[in-house]
Amino acid sequence: MCGIIGIIGHEPVNQAIYDGLTVLQHRGQDAAGIVTSDGRKLYLRRDNGLVKDVFNERHMAMLQGNMGIGHVRYPTAGSSSSAEAQPFYVNSPYGISLAHNGNLTNAHVLKKELYRQDRRQINTESDSEILLNVFAQELLSQDALHVTPGDIFAAVEGVHRRCKGAYAVVAMLTRDGLVGFRDPNGIRPLVYGVRETPHGKEFMLASESVALDVQGYRLVRDIEPGEAIFIRPDGQVFTRQCAQNPSYNTCIFEYVYFARPDSIIDNVFVHKARMRMGRKMAEHVMREWPDNDIDVVIPIPDTSRTSALEMAYTLGVPYREGFIKNRYIGRTFIMPGQAKRKKSVRQKLNSLALEFKGKNVMLVDDSIVRGTTSQEIVQMARDAGAKKVYFASASPPIKFPNIYGIDMPAAKELIAHGRTEEEVAQAIGVDRLVYLPLPDLIAAVSKGNPRLKAFDCSVFTGHYATGENGDYFAELEALRNDEQQTNREKNMVAIDICNSD
Amino acid sequence: MCGIIGIIGHEPVNQAIYDGLTVLQHRGQDAAGIVTSDGRKLYLRRDNGLVKDVFNERHMAMLQGNMGIGHVRYPTAGSSSSAEAQPFYVNSPYGISLAHNGNLTNAHVLKKELYRQDRRQINTESDSEILLNVFAQELLSQDALHVTPGDIFAAVEGVHRRCKGAYAVVAMLTRDGLVGFRDPNGIRPLVYGVRETPHGKEFMLASESVALDVQGYRLVRDIEPGEAIFIRPDGQVFTRQCAQNPSYNTCIFEYVYFARPDSIIDNVFVHKARMRMGRKMAEHVMREWPDNDIDVVIPIPDTSRTSALEMAYTLGVPYREGFIKNRYIGRTFIMPGQAKRKKSVRQKLNSLALEFKGKNVMLVDDSIVRGTTSQEIVQMARDAGAKKVYFASASPPIKFPNIYGIDMPAAKELIAHGRTEEEVAQAIGVDRLVYLPLPDLIAAVSKGNPRLKAFDCSVFTGHYATGENGDYFAELEALRNDEQQTNREKNMVAIDICNSD
Amino acid sequence: MCGIIGIIGHEPVNQAIYDGLTVLQHRGQDAAGIVTSDGRKLYLRRDNGLVKDVFNERHMAMLQGNMGIGHVRYPTAGSSSSAEAQPFYVNSPYGISLAHNGNLTNAHVLKKELYRQDRRQINTESDSEILLNVFAQELLSQDALHVTPGDIFAAVEGVHRRCKGAYAVVAMLTRDGLVGFRDPNGIRPLVYGVRETPHGKEFMLASESVALDVQGYRLVRDIEPGEAIFIRPDGQVFTRQCAQNPSYNTCIFEYVYFARPDSIIDNVFVHKARMRMGRKMAEHVMREWPDNDIDVVIPIPDTSRTSALEMAYTLGVPYREGFIKNRYIGRTFIMPGQAKRKKSVRQKLNSLALEFKGKNVMLVDDSIVRGTTSQEIVQMARDAGAKKVYFASASPPIKFPNIYGIDMPAAKELIAHGRTEEEVAQAIGVDRLVYLPLPDLIAAVSKGNPRLKAFDCSVFTGHYATGENGDYFAELEALRNDEQQTNREKNMVAIDICNSD
Amino acid sequence: MCGIIGIIGHEPVNQAIYDGLTVLQHRGQDAAGIVTSDGRKLYLRRDNGLVKDVFNERHMAMLQGNMGIGHVRYPTAGSSSSAEAQPFYVNSPYGISLAHNGNLTNAHVLKKELYRQDRRQINTESDSEILLNVFAQELLSQDALHVTPGDIFAAVEGVHRRCKGAYAVVAMLTRDGLVGFRDPNGIRPLVYGVRETPHGKEFMLASESVALDVQGYRLVRDIEPGEAIFIRPDGQVFTRQCAQNPSYNTCIFEYVYFARPDSIIDNVFVHKARMRMGRKMAEHVMREWPDNDIDVVIPIPDTSRTSALEMAYTLGVPYREGFIKNRYIGRTFIMPGQAKRKKSVRQKLNSLALEFKGKNVMLVDDSIVRGTTSQEIVQMARDAGAKKVYFASASPPIKFPNIYGIDMPAAKELIAHGRTEEEVAQAIGVDRLVYLPLPDLIAAVSKGNPRLKAFDCSVFTGHYATGENGDYFAELEALRNDEQQTNREKNMVAIDICNSD
Repeated sequence: MCGIIGIIGHEPVNQAIYDGLTVLQHRGQDAAGIVTSDGRKLYLRRDNGLVKDVFNERHMAMLQGNMGIGHVRYPTAGSSSSAEAQPFYVNSPYGISLAHNGNLTNAHVLKKELYRQDRRQINTESDSEILLNVFAQELLSQDALHVTPGDIFAAVEGVHRRCKGAYAVVAMLTRDGLVGFRDPNGIRPLVYGVRETPHGKEFMLASESVALDVQGYRLVRDIEPGEAIFIRPDGQVFTRQCAQNPSYNTCIFEYVYFARPDSIIDNVFVHKARMRMGRKMAEHVMREWPDNDIDVVIPIPDTSRTSALEMAYTLGVPYREGFIKNRYIGRTFIMPGQAKRKKSVRQKLNSLALEFKGKNVMLVDDSIVRGTTSQEIVQMARDAGAKKVYFASASPPIKFPNIYGIDMPAAKELIAHGRTEEEVAQAIGVDRLVYLPLPDLIAAVSKGNPRLKAFDCSVFTGHYATGENGDYFAELEALRNDEQQTNREKNMVAIDICNSD
Repeated sequence: MCGIIGIIGHEPVNQAIYDGLTVLQHRGQDAAGIVTSDGRKLYLRRDNGLVKDVFNERHMAMLQGNMGIGHVRYPTAGSSSSAEAQPFYVNSPYGISLAHNGNLTNAHVLKKELYRQDRRQINTESDSEILLNVFAQELLSQDALHVTPGDIFAAVEGVHRRCKGAYAVVAMLTRDGLVGFRDPNGIRPLVYGVRETPHGKEFMLASESVALDVQGYRLVRDIEPGEAIFIRPDGQVFTRQCAQNPSYNTCIFEYVYFARPDSIIDNVFVHKARMRMGRKMAEHVMREWPDNDIDVVIPIPDTSRTSALEMAYTLGVPYREGFIKNRYIGRTFIMPGQAKRKKSVRQKLNSLALEFKGKNVMLVDDSIVRGTTSQEIVQMARDAGAKKVYFASASPPIKFPNIYGIDMPAAKELIAHGRTEEEVAQAIGVDRLVYLPLPDLIAAVSKGNPRLKAFDCSVFTGHYATGENGDYFAELEALRNDEQQTNREKNMVAIDICNSD
Repeated sequence: MCGIIGIIGHEPVNQAIYDGLTVLQHRGQDAAGIVTSDGRKLYLRRDNGLVKDVFNERHMAMLQGNMGIGHVRYPTAGSSSSAEAQPFYVNSPYGISLAHNGNLTNAHVLKKELYRQDRRQINTESDSEILLNVFAQELLSQDALHVTPGDIFAAVEGVHRRCKGAYAVVAMLTRDGLVGFRDPNGIRPLVYGVRETPHGKEFMLASESVALDVQGYRLVRDIEPGEAIFIRPDGQVFTRQCAQNPSYNTCIFEYVYFARPDSIIDNVFVHKARMRMGRKMAEHVMREWPDNDIDVVIPIPDTSRTSALEMAYTLGVPYREGFIKNRYIGRTFIMPGQAKRKKSVRQKLNSLALEFKGKNVMLVDDSIVRGTTSQEIVQMARDAGAKKVYFASASPPIKFPNIYGIDMPAAKELIAHGRTEEEVAQAIGVDRLVYLPLPDLIAAVSKGNPRLKAFDCSVFTGHYATGENGDYFAELEALRNDEQQTNREKNMVAIDICNSD
Repeated sequence: MCGIIGIIGHEPVNQAIYDGLTVLQHRGQDAAGIVTSDGRKLYLRRDNGLVKDVFNERHMAMLQGNMGIGHVRYPTAGSSSSAEAQPFYVNSPYGISLAHNGNLTNAHVLKKELYRQDRRQINTESDSEILLNVFAQELLSQDALHVTPGDIFAAVEGVHRRCKGAYAVVAMLTRDGLVGFRDPNGIRPLVYGVRETPHGKEFMLASESVALDVQGYRLVRDIEPGEAIFIRPDGQVFTRQCAQNPSYNTCIFEYVYFARPDSIIDNVFVHKARMRMGRKMAEHVMREWPDNDIDVVIPIPDTSRTSALEMAYTLGVPYREGFIKNRYIGRTFIMPGQAKRKKSVRQKLNSLALEFKGKNVMLVDDSIVRGTTSQEIVQMARDAGAKKVYFASASPPIKFPNIYGIDMPAAKELIAHGRTEEEVAQAIGVDRLVYLPLPDLIAAVSKGNPRLKAFDCSVFTGHYATGENGDYFAELEALRNDEQQTNREKNMVAIDICNSD
């Protein structure tokens, strides 16, 4: 997952983009980048690391101009090098920079097409460089000296026609303004806000509304699936639907886990959605297990605290914080001649024995992916003296891979893949396991916005809105295996051409 | 405040000390250091920054040996340079390294005495360098080629005789072993643990028991006020009371705010003490304000969640998390030609409007120091739509400075200094303010260990266990003003002799 | 001035390009860069600094592939930022990277043309980015999927048509091979060499033949003025004359000062040319000043040692090394509150008094530019006890600016601008000054290759082969003044888009 | 070898010491360090690297005070870590810092003695730390609160009594002033200079007089063998002979190779001594080989240019520069999967074929150590077309190891060890080899100062002034072998206690 931001205003935007990226940092801690424009030249800084580590005084002074875009990146298989930090840039036409959140599923086809048809060299493994070049080529074919909104929207139409997958995008034309758009299924979120200043209106595009809040921008609305927005340096705003058959298929995982609770995504308040998940979960337990003997509800921090608290109230049992999160995680160094130590959950969480001793505890987590962490935590609860350990997942069993930008393991590494709920319960060692049923999850979210009829729930159902099938996954699997072999020697050093260090 | 750690074992201790320091990182995020010994030579690495930033692969490989000590430092007025990162070292006698948590109140006198009487140059402003040299000189005067426990204890007696203030110390003799001791009032904590391994017992000294837990050490007990412990490389353990009139005066702020909830300090479980504070606070409210109209209890994260939850249960009103903490804080850059932006609480906290709208909210924090943060948070609650805003502090009014190692402002900057509770309430803008009475606070802590009769409560009472009076504070105030003037030009560059970068 | 290199071989070229750049380091110590291709992707590293400081182990491991180009840069007014280190890159078409030595005199016109006509954004102040984009656009207009030699040569013809000034260029197409070409006047040098290996032939292009020697390449020949060479990864070599009226106008300063003595440029051995300059200088002295009382000839190290030695032999007086060069120059730090120290020649040279005391010394330098250094050295000779101080310049008076890539001051800062030889002699404080007459200089060089009829001697004559006139210099002067004003605040931070740090 | 410097003045000395170290950089390019005192505190910066790389703006600003010492280090077997960069420091007594040039031959004994007798921990492998602690302990035993010159001289007497070997030392007492002294044989050089300023006299101690010249200090005189100098911050100067039987045994290699030509050492001008060596060499050739057919004399740059020029004049044959030194040397990177390239002389030197072709050349070098370089150069001369290749060494055959601070290989690696001159000639492949006879070498130097009766010529004779015998060398050999084994894993990381990075 990634976070994106774009600002166009009447004073330098470097600090504002920087601050916005720290607010979106939960969407990606792997790399960060900002590009700004003074209307004539671009200024870029990007590298691996947290926002606070990537930018220093000198970089910030260099990032001049009243318009810019920013990006934070989540580590994904193919893009570990700093050369693949975003934003990306092409100088032809107009000098365009771009950052995106999502994943293209036809990247390989596009890469070949771009070289053969458009003579465009793609120098990294990042699908963002591909997306940028598709957009650039479509815009070049409009052949305008002064770019009009119509040129922009025609180019976005071209992107929708050629690209497949999930993408929420911010782009910038060095002289002409800011562009934002969302794929026709609206899988990844993008909002748009405005702020009044003495010098006129300023505009922000961002992955989540919380980035607007912190800087005093008012949330105007979500960019619609398939829609594009174009904002000129003088403050003129243009929007147009650029897709043929757009429809809402927001990624439901944004609500379950990814987004901050204080964000509003496609008009649904995430915090409220999570409270409803907690209530639904309690109701589900009371329905299925009316004679339960739960003594206490204990969240696995941090995300699940919201749903766990509401679950506890609804069940009428106490809520307790039984795990303390270690906020400062270090590395495990491999010393020559010393045995390698196992990275364990215990370095991240410590249990408060007194909250477990002699009790039947209901642990609550947002989801279960590989199951290894859950298993360790269950063991910690038992070591701390719990009588019985129950486990609630605020989402249904995850059985299929994510292909829209969330870094999840291959199907066979998912604990619920090919296992019944009982088998999962046994595997993670709990006395009883509760999964929130999918209809309940959907109801918990869609209650906030009745327009949301469908979601991307592919990790639960295996149904992909963009129609990928078995062939794609076979290819993906092959690639993954191939990469694992060459990763060490090759990809670690694959630093692209645009990168000086 | 600082965190200290010492380990003596049968295999390299670099990773174990590193991991222990990350667990104690909440006690100091300003600087970190580790020194190890292979029985013949010392290896040192220390610098400003978080543990994870100070040590890299190369440093860790260099930190050889089965014995070592570590330190994390809280930023304090006089010691911002990396030259003053601990541990400190003197080569005469024996090669001694030392790290300490606390503050000496007679540092200036000792510094002169060390030069005039002992010809020892003190090259930094750190009182730890002074403490080390006092210990070294006292040990030198024992004049032993092979150091005995008796020599060590005699030296600690000398330290107790000469030094005034609070100090919990770990020290290491390059060849001879590990030493730990606590000042005669036991103001700063120090525990001692043991771990069985196939090669024999291993020992850890640490500021808090949680550092033992994470690595599988069993908490043996607290080091007593005035007591010293000496552990030889072969695993022999010696302890002795080295003070004339030792007594427990544990800093009560460890329980209120500083320590991790999952630590046990002087035999009191911090998490439990905080729960009891919440209960006491609720009882106090019900007693003083029986007809209150509190709709919801909302903690100001993170520390006060424990007491707020218990307070809510006792009051019988809902508990809600209404503030989301931004985990990733960046810097505010000062750009030439741009107006400086105000550092605000809003960069750290965001409110969830729906939890405030139309409600009478009781905000809970662990304490109120300057009051500026509280004031901003109260305003955020009002902006989020709260009908009435009440505020509970889980500790009494702070009216006096801390001189035992907690970095607190001068008296006149404390909002409760010279103000009644009503005046404080007005100043921070709340409809009603509740302070936990001191007897309630003491009761909440001492319930866990009846041996604890007294605590260092000087910030509430102005009574200092080591007898400092007005003269000391006048001097301190003068120094502080003096420092403010020269800080920029002088102290920023005051890098000591032991520091190569 | 800059140095360029390109290698195409059968094994990784990273070390070979690195070694070649250190050999060419005298042509530019300001910045360095290498880009390599593995036939599919490019790998780039460039930054300010010496070759040995810009590349570390990690960078070298990253620079994969059997083909690549490299560059060392001399500091010039407009290009101090690391963003303007070469090589430059555009991804459309084909992924082209390029490095160049020289200067375009119609850069401003080209920049506007590239945006208006070709929609290409130029993001730096470097004319190399412009040259690259002209080449790229001309190549794109050939519209070939598989590039032929004909396409390449047509594109170079386009470059010759559009660009004005001096340029020796190496470029690389990611998949298709290496290109080299020289402007139609051949002002900047470029040679071509070959090496036999068990796997087949390997090829190197370089500014100077000495780069070939060190790696065991055999010098094949100079690239002719206006000519282009295209070498495919499989070792096929194609050359063609791409200019209408090419002619040799080699920069005579290469022989006087710039090139290494062990290089052969346009078939003239630089060392021999310098010896002939020394002989001509002696003959000139004997002719003009037959009764001279020169006791000793002393070179100003390092360049002039060759001509001074020959001059001494021809004059029949001893040759002595009277100045010791300090090989390790540090910085002069500006400390707050301390008076700024004058940067002086004495930090670079120290005189050996015994070689001067009581003697009439003839100092020899390659040229006199501003005259300030000469003046200081003359004074050093007098301080060391010289009876009389004479001065010989191995080149004629420099009166006009260089616009072909040598970083020289504006006309009014040149000591010989508007001064007679006597006035210059007086200004630098010598008893007698000897300039090598231009016909003698030309004869000294062209004796090595009778084909060389003309040279670029514009700094002596004010005649520019590419026809720049008064308007151009007025514009240049205006720009220079303008830059001085904004340099501090603006250009220092002008880091381009392709640069991550 | 190392270079040392000490300055005491009336304004900050940081820049002056820095500049002095760059002038002495030829004595050591491995590490550099400066410590300054403001009369109350010390400020230290030291690290591996050239002077220009070790100190940046921040370090220089930190190095406050009007008194300080500096050091540049030559790489020696046992001290590659940055922890062993000098100066060293002990805080007891008085805060003493020290830097030294030379080598103690009884370091191992002293190290044990310092721990057993004085309880002083030595934490590095550097004999400078040992020397410092001996001096400190001797000074402590004077037991003075205010140090007198008598205390200082008594301590130096103690050093002479306990330490064996070669040492030229600068030391600083934080409050009390600067100390300099030389071992009783005066093997390593140390001079003393003075400069008048408006604020009073300023003083400099340095390894070579050239460091005085550049900063405008007047050379007063050499410190005598065994003599000590003590300079107080107020400018009072005290000197005393502190050894029993001092005598001049200056290292003759200072004149042959090590010192700068523009230095005066023990009252002999190095440049003149080298000219006399050239003349003696010519006379030797004419005597031994009257019918020689030498066509040209060619120096191997840089040192031998002085003697070669004089040799050529005396022989009456031309002098030519036939080798061009590459001033910019890079690294040879070891790439995984690539064959390691041999580091060759050709990366450092390039030959000018035209100076060799068809001629009988006499190559001149200052000395022949291992012979491998000479052999490669001879081959280069042949490859360049020389008819016959002769070789002159400006010093006698080197047959024994240096134990006084010059980093030379073990005896068995010396080409002249156990070989006749003819065998050496054959080994390096020359047609005739000429060594300057030792009496000639001694005469060439002592002509400048008749007081110099003896020199340290141990590498030629095997006679060591401090009486080391076979046992010592056996021990050394054992240590060297031992070190070679553990160097990689152990010493590379041996970073001492005083070193934070």
